[in-house]
Amino acid sequence: MSLATNYIYSSRDHKFILKEWLDLGPVLGSDRYKNSYGIDDIDPVLDNALKVAREVLAPCNDDGDALHARYENGRVKTPDSYKKAYFFVQENGLGSSNKDHHDESALPCSIFASCSEYLAAANPGLGPYFMATTGAAGLVQKYGSEKVKQVFLAKMFSGQWAGTMDLTEPGGGSDVGDILTRAYPTDAPGVYRIVGTKCFITGGEQDITENIVHLTLARIEGAAPGTRGISLFVVPKYWPDEKGGVGSFNDVSCAGIEHKMGLRGSSTAVVSYGEEGHCRGYLLGDPPGEDGTGQGMAQMFDMMNEERMVTGHAATALATIAYNNAAQYASQRIQGRKLTNPKGGRVPIIKHEDVRRMLMFQKAHIDAFRALIIFTYHLLDLAETSTDPEVVKRARATIEVHTPIIKAYCSDLGFLCISEAMQVYGGYGYSEEYPVAQILRDSRIYAIWEGTNFIQALDLVGRKWTMGKGQVFTAWLKEIAVFVGKNQGAPGLEREFAVMQEACQHYQDIYRTVGGYAMTGKLELAGLYATRILHATGKLICGKILLDQALLAKRKMEEIGSEHHDYPFYQGKVASARFYVRNIVPEIETTLKVVKDADTSAIEVPEEALLLG
Amino acid sequence: MSLATNYIYSSRDHKFILKEWLDLGPVLGSDRYKNSYGIDDIDPVLDNALKVAREVLAPCNDDGDALHARYENGRVKTPDSYKKAYFFVQENGLGSSNKDHHDESALPCSIFASCSEYLAAANPGLGPYFMATTGAAGLVQKYGSEKVKQVFLAKMFSGQWAGTMDLTEPGGGSDVGDILTRAYPTDAPGVYRIVGTKCFITGGEQDITENIVHLTLARIEGAAPGTRGISLFVVPKYWPDEKGGVGSFNDVSCAGIEHKMGLRGSSTAVVSYGEEGHCRGYLLGDPPGEDGTGQGMAQMFDMMNEERMVTGHAATALATIAYNNAAQYASQRIQGRKLTNPKGGRVPIIKHEDVRRMLMFQKAHIDAFRALIIFTYHLLDLAETSTDPEVVKRARATIEVHTPIIKAYCSDLGFLCISEAMQVYGGYGYSEEYPVAQILRDSRIYAIWEGTNFIQALDLVGRKWTMGKGQVFTAWLKEIAVFVGKNQGAPGLEREFAVMQEACQHYQDIYRTVGGYAMTGKLELAGLYATRILHATGKLICGKILLDQALLAKRKMEEIGSEHHDYPFYQGKVASARFYVRNIVPEIETTLKVVKDADTSAIEVPEEALLLG
Repeated sequence: MSLATNYIYSSRDHKFILKEWLDLGPVLGSDRYKNSYGIDDIDPVLDNALKVAREVLAPCNDDGDALHARYENGRVKTPDSYKKAYFFVQENGLGSSNKDHHDESALPCSIFASCSEYLAAANPGLGPYFMATTGAAGLVQKYGSEKVKQVFLAKMFSGQWAGTMDLTEPGGGSDVGDILTRAYPTDAPGVYRIVGTKCFITGGEQDITENIVHLTLARIEGAAPGTRGISLFVVPKYWPDEKGGVGSFNDVSCAGIEHKMGLRGSSTAVVSYGEEGHCRGYLLGDPPGEDGTGQGMAQMFDMMNEERMVTGHAATALATIAYNNAAQYASQRIQGRKLTNPKGGRVPIIKHEDVRRMLMFQKAHIDAFRALIIFTYHLLDLAETSTDPEVVKRARATIEVHTPIIKAYCSDLGFLCISEAMQVYGGYGYSEEYPVAQILRDSRIYAIWEGTNFIQALDLVGRKWTMGKGQVFTAWLKEIAVFVGKNQGAPGLEREFAVMQEACQHYQDIYRTVGGYAMTGKLELAGLYATRILHATGKLICGKILLDQALLAKRKMEEIGSEHHDYPFYQGKVASARFYVRNIVPEIETTLKVVKDADTSAIEVPEEALLLG
Repeated sequence: MSLATNYIYSSRDHKFILKEWLDLGPVLGSDRYKNSYGIDDIDPVLDNALKVAREVLAPCNDDGDALHARYENGRVKTPDSYKKAYFFVQENGLGSSNKDHHDESALPCSIFASCSEYLAAANPGLGPYFMATTGAAGLVQKYGSEKVKQVFLAKMFSGQWAGTMDLTEPGGGSDVGDILTRAYPTDAPGVYRIVGTKCFITGGEQDITENIVHLTLARIEGAAPGTRGISLFVVPKYWPDEKGGVGSFNDVSCAGIEHKMGLRGSSTAVVSYGEEGHCRGYLLGDPPGEDGTGQGMAQMFDMMNEERMVTGHAATALATIAYNNAAQYASQRIQGRKLTNPKGGRVPIIKHEDVRRMLMFQKAHIDAFRALIIFTYHLLDLAETSTDPEVVKRARATIEVHTPIIKAYCSDLGFLCISEAMQVYGGYGYSEEYPVAQILRDSRIYAIWEGTNFIQALDLVGRKWTMGKGQVFTAWLKEIAVFVGKNQGAPGLEREFAVMQEACQHYQDIYRTVGGYAMTGKLELAGLYATRILHATGKLICGKILLDQALLAKRKMEEIGSEHHDYPFYQGKVASARFYVRNIVPEIETTLKVVKDADTSAIEVPEEALLLG
């Protein structure tokens, strides 16, 4: 059974988030959007994207998984159906054109991200081709010289030329500062000769677009060592000719692609530059100054941060499609009798307590993730459109805090949600005839790429906790505590807000305790606990967001009454908050206990003891 | 890269368990084994099994995953290399002959299970063919009439004829009582005509053995409804001829096999009996009496309980091979600098705190699982060989308690361990060129088959908690509490025993709380918490076992001194106990908090709210 017949997805939750929970007024009323989009446009835009996802992308999802991207003689063959679907997305305003700040039809990030979620869920293997193009185009627009923008931008915004992000090298994954790719000045201003090899390049070679624009990290001869000396280059596979079309081969070749557990339609390539000595690239921004500092890492981080959000969002999309299928299966599969009525008739398994536990586990996480992510995209919109510097500053700070949480917490837990969806199916879940097996395989990459989840955890604890001498993070924490304090005793949610208040205190204690370790030179303890702290942080913000949505849902329920067709939707929101806060949030206390206990067995165990297998 | 080149496995831990930690004296000195095996035989037996695993089974692991078991025109084709490996195992005393109670060369269960672990790890797709045969042979020996034993037993013990276990039907998985397969008496005594269809039958059709002996659950016409009325039949694919060879086709056909995410070399078949109306089977044991009660479920549970242990053990085996590969990779992969020495040189990733956390997470779980499982097999040996009825009774009771924990806790956590092994690898972990991707895919079935893990959780909470009016379980709990109490203040493990003492109290409180729910008619709460309780129970017994091993390891360390080559092994044992008790065991308290809080949102949420996708 394919996703083509199982593309069960709804725009209801996005409409709740965008039209009821968030206030998009300031963004839609801004100079940038006031003439293009209003609140009434949200429904048709979302519904159209969902239709494209269902009718254009989902039908070729099976092709990607069954046919794979295939490597042969330096070329990569993608499934035939991919090309059509890719261009349909690009030509219908759902692709990289949304990054164009000068395009009046570009959607606000919060709405564009919602649309992208439908596409990612419908075809996780195809999505990366246009999502990477979107990110790369944004970077070229932001940092490219007039010349570079003139040569590349229109082709990238139209999707005619795809974009990629080329960081990792065979000798270095998480360790970007040690890259070996080199750039040498040429006679042409801003043009460098590039030599090196990158690996794990998503879309690094494909036969969908006529050209591929690699945004490639390299060190200019003589620049500083480490991440500091790195620059970013625009390295097209084919050098643009004078008319702006595809010119001569630029000595960018593909040495092979990975044979992956999932996302098989997406090519993951080894890319070599300058094997014949004549690969060239345009420098983005300025060359390193006298101290040898390049701008590459900062530029790449712009795109990387975006891709980190895209990753957490893709994990959420896949968890959603798995959940939707599992819930529907559970409502139809007859098996067993109620524990509380063993003499009664056989029931659909959705009546069994453990199946409900598994479904609520998935639903609560998904509701929280989606709200967290779209909210963060909304902050990006505010940061880009607001004229109030204080609003912009706060929005940017919150995005910084949320990014590693979205990347890592949503991908780690998203994978567990999908595994629970498989468990709901029982034996059929393990069969590739049903949709969850592929979703499980596809989704496992999200905890790894765009910086492994440990890199995210270090980013949270090492950078985000300490930004602005800690003021950014403590302000973020305080906002949660104030919200929770203000709503103590909220009717029907008394217990939930009480649990959250304890959780806030536990989290603050974690922050103090581990912050103390770092300040007293016990840095290794911060490293040891970083992943668990990231998860605890995810639990805290998700608990807060779900309660905020539950308060709104309760007001709506009163407004519309229990006969209204939307009533169960709001009941579901309240249930998500209750389930999450009372079943997941208490785990924060365990993390506190563990970090206070400060066991160091993992650090002290001798290496030989780990290698006795 | 294949398991053939990555079969990293050691017998060291088994030797520790069998020769140092457990006392095999009473078993090896029993009438059954005193003339066949002594303590000095353990090393050569284990080392030989490891050699077979490495040299015979691991080399055809790739074949199973790449070529799959393939269905064509009613037949299943397995990889050519499978047949040779299967018979090598059978002919070298590592297969079903070990079930023969009359075979002097049969190994004690604790040693046989250790050998089987090596085989399961080396080739997870091939293992089920001989493991199912082993279980089925045991059942025929235990319950078969003289006639049935005479016809089938020698062929099954030699492996010439394979055995399978046929419970599940298209309409019923967990719900065995509702099976539709029927049996009708014939003129021949003990022989019934069988009509029906089963699915998810492991090894249900294959081309390795000349005959397949299906142990098939069916309801004899007129027997009671539900599980009570079920009988078990020996249904060969080919009816044995008068000389005991393969006779005429017995109308047992294969309608297809599953296309699975993993374990692809293992065929998972749809099996039809009597499509042409002439399928026959031998009844095992007696026909239903006047009240319509058959013996089938009780007999099948014999085999099922064994297969549940085999399942938890296979999960442990796969977690081990993934861990061993990940640890070795981590010791060789150079990436990044120490957090505590950022200006120092690049280091192997095994030096990074989070990699160590992930490795210790795996190692501690694996150490605990293996010890729990081999210990339980040892209890089976005691139950089968002891002449002291009290020993037999206690051993059987403990096996009952441990079985659902081994099946479910080891498979749930084993999967998470393997996912962590993949994370250690980073991007390469997601590539099928490295061994972990297949291991992850293969291992996901263990939480599903042989009774889903929720079925195990219900078995624990519904049956094992209440056996003998609760006395069995409270005695089991008390044994842990006494051990923990006795060792308070043990030098170097003070903190660990203090944490365990708290955990014992928390667990007892869970037992009282949820027991109270069940007694006051809130049965749905027991269902809602069963899975989490099973996990808490796993944490308790694993913590106890690891501490017991740590006490022994500490004594050994004193004995041999820090220069001894075995010293790191014992350090590793102490580290496993410390890590597990101080990082995992505290989660029991969260479970207590959650069950006391008794949130019922998952039960109360309206079904429509779960189905809005």
